[in-house]
Amino acid sequence: MSKRTMILGMQLGNGYGSQPMAWKAPGVDAANYANFDAHVRYAQAAERGKFAFLFLPDFAGMSKAPEQEAPMLTLDPLMTLAAIARGTERIGLVATGSTTFNEPYNTARQFKTLDVMSHGRAGWNAVTTSDPLVAANYGQEIDARPERYERAHETIQIAQALWGSWEKDAWIKDQQTGQFADPDKIQPINLQGRHVASRGPLPIPPSEQGQPVVFQAGGGDYGLGLAGRYANAVIGATFTIEDAKAQRNAVRKAAVDAGRDPDEIKYFAGVMPAIAGSKREALDRRVALGREVFPARVPYLGAMLGLSLDVSQLNQPLTGEQLEAARPSPFDPRSQRAYEVAQEGWSIRDILAHGVIDYHPTPVGTAEDTADHLQEWFEAGAADGFWVSIDVYEDGIDTFVDEVVPILQERGLYHSDYEGTTLRDHLGVPEQYGQDPRLG
Amino acid sequence: MSKRTMILGMQLGNGYGSQPMAWKAPGVDAANYANFDAHVRYAQAAERGKFAFLFLPDFAGMSKAPEQEAPMLTLDPLMTLAAIARGTERIGLVATGSTTFNEPYNTARQFKTLDVMSHGRAGWNAVTTSDPLVAANYGQEIDARPERYERAHETIQIAQALWGSWEKDAWIKDQQTGQFADPDKIQPINLQGRHVASRGPLPIPPSEQGQPVVFQAGGGDYGLGLAGRYANAVIGATFTIEDAKAQRNAVRKAAVDAGRDPDEIKYFAGVMPAIAGSKREALDRRVALGREVFPARVPYLGAMLGLSLDVSQLNQPLTGEQLEAARPSPFDPRSQRAYEVAQEGWSIRDILAHGVIDYHPTPVGTAEDTADHLQEWFEAGAADGFWVSIDVYEDGIDTFVDEVVPILQERGLYHSDYEGTTLRDHLGVPEQYGQDPRLG
Repeated sequence: MSKRTMILGMQLGNGYGSQPMAWKAPGVDAANYANFDAHVRYAQAAERGKFAFLFLPDFAGMSKAPEQEAPMLTLDPLMTLAAIARGTERIGLVATGSTTFNEPYNTARQFKTLDVMSHGRAGWNAVTTSDPLVAANYGQEIDARPERYERAHETIQIAQALWGSWEKDAWIKDQQTGQFADPDKIQPINLQGRHVASRGPLPIPPSEQGQPVVFQAGGGDYGLGLAGRYANAVIGATFTIEDAKAQRNAVRKAAVDAGRDPDEIKYFAGVMPAIAGSKREALDRRVALGREVFPARVPYLGAMLGLSLDVSQLNQPLTGEQLEAARPSPFDPRSQRAYEVAQEGWSIRDILAHGVIDYHPTPVGTAEDTADHLQEWFEAGAADGFWVSIDVYEDGIDTFVDEVVPILQERGLYHSDYEGTTLRDHLGVPEQYGQDPRLG
Repeated sequence: MSKRTMILGMQLGNGYGSQPMAWKAPGVDAANYANFDAHVRYAQAAERGKFAFLFLPDFAGMSKAPEQEAPMLTLDPLMTLAAIARGTERIGLVATGSTTFNEPYNTARQFKTLDVMSHGRAGWNAVTTSDPLVAANYGQEIDARPERYERAHETIQIAQALWGSWEKDAWIKDQQTGQFADPDKIQPINLQGRHVASRGPLPIPPSEQGQPVVFQAGGGDYGLGLAGRYANAVIGATFTIEDAKAQRNAVRKAAVDAGRDPDEIKYFAGVMPAIAGSKREALDRRVALGREVFPARVPYLGAMLGLSLDVSQLNQPLTGEQLEAARPSPFDPRSQRAYEVAQEGWSIRDILAHGVIDYHPTPVGTAEDTADHLQEWFEAGAADGFWVSIDVYEDGIDTFVDEVVPILQERGLYHSDYEGTTLRDHLGVPEQYGQDPRLG
C-alpha cells in the first residue's frame, strides 16, 4: 500500500513570476512577456519536478497601463498552453476561461482541442467574471450573481455534453473497411438554456482521458454549487490551515450533495514560497523584489494591525508602544500572521518581505522551511495538494524543483515520477465522457 | 531590378489532404486528424518550399457524421497554428475566423497572441457565417446578409483598433529605469457599433509586423467592400483565367475606392494539382483517391454536360451521340472544362479524375504541367499568387516542394528564399498599427 502523497500544480503567469517586479529581477529577460520560448522552458522545469499541472489564471482586460509593473497574466492562456503542449509530455495544462463572455461552443472546442493535442492533459478552470472593466471590453455590463452563475451552469453543461458528443468508441478510422466514424455514436446535444444553447455535435474525438478536467476557483455558496457538480479540482485561496480544512470539507460535502464521490474532487491550497540559503537571504530576496512596492503598502499594513503607520518607519521595527497597541484586523485573514511576524521584532520592510500582504501563505527561509510548511498543511488535512506561485520563474522554479521536491520525496510525501500520462491520472480522478450521469 | 514573382500559400485542413478519401491513402496514418505532429511536419515541408503562408479554413460545425469521409478541417485553426508556430520559423500562419459568432475582443486577443508568439507571422481570414447549422451551435439564427456584413465591418474595425491599442513604441521594458510601458501610448479604444463594442486596451504589445494581416475570402459586393477596406490578401475562388482576372481587378478597384493602394492587396487563385510521373499516373492517383465518391458524382457530371448519365457507364467514355448532344451548363463555371475533357475521349471515371467537379482548377500530369498552369495564370495577370490544395499531404507536399518549386525557381517565377521574416514581408504589404488612417 502506498502512502497518500500530495499533488503539486504550478501557477504560470506573465513570463516573469508572481512578484510584481519580477520582470526586472537579475537574470530575467525583460521581453519574456511576449517570449514563448521562456514560457515553454518554465513549463519544462515544472515537468522535471513532476508537477501534476500548470495553472494559468486569466483576466480579459488590463486594469491600468502597466507603467512600472508588468501585467500579471499571459497574452492568452489557451494559445500559451497550445505552445507549451508542444514542448512538454506529461504535465497537465489548465487554463482559466470565463463562462460569462465566451460562447460554450467556442470554449468546448478550444479546450477539447488542447486536450487532444496534448494527449489528455487539458483542464478548464471555469470561472464567472464580475469585473465591469472586462464587461466593457465586450460592450456589456455585469449581470447579477445569480444570473452569472446560472449561465455558468448552462455553459459547463453544454461544454461537457459537446465533449461527449463523440462517444468513447465513435472514431473507427479503419482504413481497410473504409469506416471513418460510427455515426450512431456521434449525436447532436440539443441543449437549450436560458442564457446559452447549442446543437452540436462537436467534430472532435475523445482524448486519452476522455475530455478536459473541470477546475473551479470561486468561493461562496455559488462557487461551491458549481464545484460540487462539475469540478474535479478546486483552486483554493486560504491563509490558515483551519480555513483550508474548512474549505476542503465544504468542497467535498458539495460533491456528496451532488451525488458524487468526495474523493473525485481535489482541493489545492495556494503557497508562494521565498526560498534561499537562509531566512535572512530569503527575506533579502523579497526585499529586492518589493523595493518599489513596499512604501505604498505601509499604510495598509498599519490597518491590518490597527495602527497608523507611515513610510518613514519602513526600515525600523514597531516600537514597544506600537506592539502593545497592535490588534489583528478582523477584516483581513492575513492579519494574524502579520501580527505574529511583527511581534518577532522585524522591521516593517522585513514584515512585508514575509509576504504578509501577498496573495498566498509565504514560507520564508530554506527549501526545508517550505517543505515543512507543505507537510504541515498536508498532514493536517488542509489540502490534497498545492498550487505553487513562484516569485521569479527564471531561477525560482529550478530552486523549488531541485531543492524542495527532493526533500518531499525523501519524506515520502511526493511521488518520484508520474504514475500515468493524463491529467486525470495525475489527479487520481476517473475518465469522463460527456455530462456526469449521476447529476440530476 | 528583380522580376515580380508569384507568392504561394498552402491550404492545411484535416491532417490528411484535400481529397475526401485522403485519410486512407497509402502511407497515411489514419489518426492524423488528431495528430499535431503530422500537422507540424506538413507545415515544415511547406516552409522548406518557401511558401508565404499556411491557410486554414474553418467551419464551426459538422454537417454530417463522418461515416466514410473525414471532416475536412482541423480541430481548431488557432490552436493548430499555435502548435505550428512552435515548429516553424518563417512561414505565415493564416486562420479563418468568423465575425458572426465571435466576440471582437476574443478574436483580437487570440490572433494578436498568435502574431506575437510567431514573431509577426499571423493572418486573420475574416469571414461571415451564413450556415444555419453553425448558428444552431451557438443557439442562434442567421441574420440577413446586410446585418452580417455590418457586424463584420464593426468586428474588424474593433479588432484592428485593439491591435493598435499599444502603439508601436509603447513597450519600454527598461530594467534600468524601471519603466515597463509608456502609459501615454496605451489607450482604450472605446468603439461602439450597432452589433458589437469594446473598450480596450488589449494588453498585448505589437509584433514584429505590427499586427496580423487581414485576409478576405467571400465574393460579391459585400465581400468586395470588406476586402477593399481591410484586406491585404484575398483568397479567391475561380475556374478560369478570365474570371480570376476579373476578380483580381475588382478587388484592386475596391481597394482604390476605399482610398488605398491596389498593390497592398494580393489576390490568390486556387489550384489543386494532381502530380505524378505522367498524365496517366496522375489520373490513376486521383482515381484511387476518388473510387468511393466517383459513382455518386456521375449524375452531377451529366447535369454539367446537359446529359443524363448513370453509373453503369463509369468506365466508358461518352458515346459519339452523347458527345454531340453535350452542352456545357451555364449554371456551373466548371462545365466548360468538363466539356473539353469529355471531348478528348476520356472515360467518365477519368473525366472525374481530371478534377472537373473539384473545388479548384486541377492541372493533371507531371510537375512541369502544374508549373505551366501556374505560369500561364500568373503571366496572364490572373493572380498575384496561388493557394495550393494538396490531394494527400503525406507525400503530396513533398512532391510539390521538391518537383514544382524548382521548376518555378528556374523559370524566375518564384523566390529562392524568404526575403524577410514576417507575413507582411512575404506578401509585400506594409506594417500596420491599429486601423488604417486612410479609411473614412
